[in-house]
Amino acid sequence: MNYVYSSIMDYLRPSPVAEMLKMASDPELLSFAGGMPDATLFPVEHLRESFDLSLREHGAKALQYSVAEGLPSLRQKICDRMLRAGIDCEIENVLLTQGGTQGIDLSAAIFLDRGDTILCENPTYMGAMGPFDVRDVNYVSVDMDEEGMRMDALEQRLREHPEAKLIYVIPDFQNPTGVTMTVERRRRIVELAREYDVLILEDNPYRELRFDHDELPAIKSFDTEGRVIFLGTFSKTLCPGMRLGWVVAEKEVINNMTTLRAATDMQCSSIAMYAADFFLEHADFDGHIRTVRDAYAMKKERMIEVMQATFPQDVSFTNPDGGIFLWLTFPQKVDAGLMLRELVIPKARAAYMPGEAFYCQAPHRNTCRLNYSGRTLEEIERGISAMGEVFRQVF
Amino acid sequence: MNYVYSSIMDYLRPSPVAEMLKMASDPELLSFAGGMPDATLFPVEHLRESFDLSLREHGAKALQYSVAEGLPSLRQKICDRMLRAGIDCEIENVLLTQGGTQGIDLSAAIFLDRGDTILCENPTYMGAMGPFDVRDVNYVSVDMDEEGMRMDALEQRLREHPEAKLIYVIPDFQNPTGVTMTVERRRRIVELAREYDVLILEDNPYRELRFDHDELPAIKSFDTEGRVIFLGTFSKTLCPGMRLGWVVAEKEVINNMTTLRAATDMQCSSIAMYAADFFLEHADFDGHIRTVRDAYAMKKERMIEVMQATFPQDVSFTNPDGGIFLWLTFPQKVDAGLMLRELVIPKARAAYMPGEAFYCQAPHRNTCRLNYSGRTLEEIERGISAMGEVFRQVF
Repeated sequence: MNYVYSSIMDYLRPSPVAEMLKMASDPELLSFAGGMPDATLFPVEHLRESFDLSLREHGAKALQYSVAEGLPSLRQKICDRMLRAGIDCEIENVLLTQGGTQGIDLSAAIFLDRGDTILCENPTYMGAMGPFDVRDVNYVSVDMDEEGMRMDALEQRLREHPEAKLIYVIPDFQNPTGVTMTVERRRRIVELAREYDVLILEDNPYRELRFDHDELPAIKSFDTEGRVIFLGTFSKTLCPGMRLGWVVAEKEVINNMTTLRAATDMQCSSIAMYAADFFLEHADFDGHIRTVRDAYAMKKERMIEVMQATFPQDVSFTNPDGGIFLWLTFPQKVDAGLMLRELVIPKARAAYMPGEAFYCQAPHRNTCRLNYSGRTLEEIERGISAMGEVFRQVF
Repeated sequence: MNYVYSSIMDYLRPSPVAEMLKMASDPELLSFAGGMPDATLFPVEHLRESFDLSLREHGAKALQYSVAEGLPSLRQKICDRMLRAGIDCEIENVLLTQGGTQGIDLSAAIFLDRGDTILCENPTYMGAMGPFDVRDVNYVSVDMDEEGMRMDALEQRLREHPEAKLIYVIPDFQNPTGVTMTVERRRRIVELAREYDVLILEDNPYRELRFDHDELPAIKSFDTEGRVIFLGTFSKTLCPGMRLGWVVAEKEVINNMTTLRAATDMQCSSIAMYAADFFLEHADFDGHIRTVRDAYAMKKERMIEVMQATFPQDVSFTNPDGGIFLWLTFPQKVDAGLMLRELVIPKARAAYMPGEAFYCQAPHRNTCRLNYSGRTLEEIERGISAMGEVFRQVF
């Protein structure tokens, strides 16, 4: 039959991530297009124990309905960890979500009406565009440089768009560019948000995966008014398959999000919350994060080395201090999507994610994202040098 | 600060379920207001093994991202089980959801725009009203009798409302009344839906909890055009804390729902899907369901016996063939909400769920819902006879 869909279906684009994951599932292909954490680093044995002992300890309670906000003891542990980001919060400020993505969706749902204006980095995380797209938002892009979103550009945009409601920003090891926002700009963005009366949605999934220095204070740490909504997740530090993320915000905001969440999917998996809580209580989570961080640092280093050795001069790239992605810029005239399909996949048997998918406005087609977390050192060497060979033939 | 929320927040009412669950958490109170399955029946040991052996067998794969549609082998097992409801489907027709609630939400999201008209039983499941409320739908109620939604009333409503888009219906052991729709009406509702070109959202969480007879064919079993969207869940047969439900619909519909789901929360917990799949493969799920069914049948019988023995003549009640709820009707002038707060809670130290919360139009305040699955036989005896004593003093 002919289905008549709601109007949100006019705005919803099939996720390029989903398509890329499908493409990346070709086992013959060395794909750097996705954003998978390295599954060989998952603390499988500790998590197995955590599920096992949670069920032994809590029994049926861990399989029954919980509260929509999520397990209080896990929310308390998140509060404790947030202190390191300079965020002082209580469990009433924390809502557990179905991964970080649901945090974006709930924030968009409670604050954004159709046609509302939001500001975001350009390029930005394409996964965030799903929740924004279904609200048919008006995207206004803010230019970045190597210190993150440019504050002069932001102020200009805020002046041009007094109707703007929210700034979406990924301050640490941004997806897709790998760029980190300086502390000065974190302070400044909160000032500007106050001055122009907009909210800030701080999406911060990679913060703890910093290779060298100490973690930087979160944007929310400079927030004295409840203007910043912070999103965190265990997907990159522990594993994505438990679907556990969180929102930190004012109690009023959390209450409203919780009401909406209770109405639409009720809660996270109880047993996943108990197991994560057990793991954080009994395992060495910080030690585990150090292991992941060191492994990713090594992968990034190797990727940079191979790029330096094999890429032609006119391919430039970022060199992130953490996270899981870096960003290439080809000469102006290159269409990275076309080059991927016509040359890189057939000749190098490797793949990147074309950059155009990440732009909310005016895509630069001569860009692409590479992920290093999901591949082995050997695969990085092989795949990136094969790409380098193709690039040398083209440029 | 003063937050400016989106317009959906104007329509979203705090969940009465959440409030009731809070009230029911008073350990001094014998609450029959919620809809909890009996946690003492959860197959904790088998599920513990299922988590354990899934993680031993699949390792990191069970903790990594999965596909948005959900684990194929679990979807296949759901297809196999759907055959018993007369539904012949393939895994491409199945999307796993975060409990049954997300199935309602995704259906509402892809088909309903603001102000769209939907038809539903009156009373109906108040939990479904969350997803409908946020779309600010126009509710049109259809009267019920002891054979479910009345088809003459439905036809009349469809004639009066040619703009209607969807019929929401719970055919088996309806929440809140416990009433089951006859097979004749299941066939007829599909005919009417075709004639008036509306969709049917068949919400069926309790189907397998039938006490005496064989399961009835689902409404969807009479669907030849893809007009019926069927919602199932493991929440009442296995446990709610794994958050696993499913949608069965045409591939096109499933594809659209999957795109939306991928954009808003990505997927169910991978490990929960693996564990459920393992459980269905290796444990005696049907035997387990028989155990649950028999226990609930006994609880319902006991509740009916105590009501017959202690309730005054002018309190009438349904006697369901399955599921977890029954429905009381007090004399016309009684306000069940008021009586709950002023008499039943203080004097009987027990609670029911006032019926008004379940009406999408024209609430009958002289009604209430009682849940029997969540209490022991002794608690049923004690709580219901205490209620009976209060009722005898009032009427």
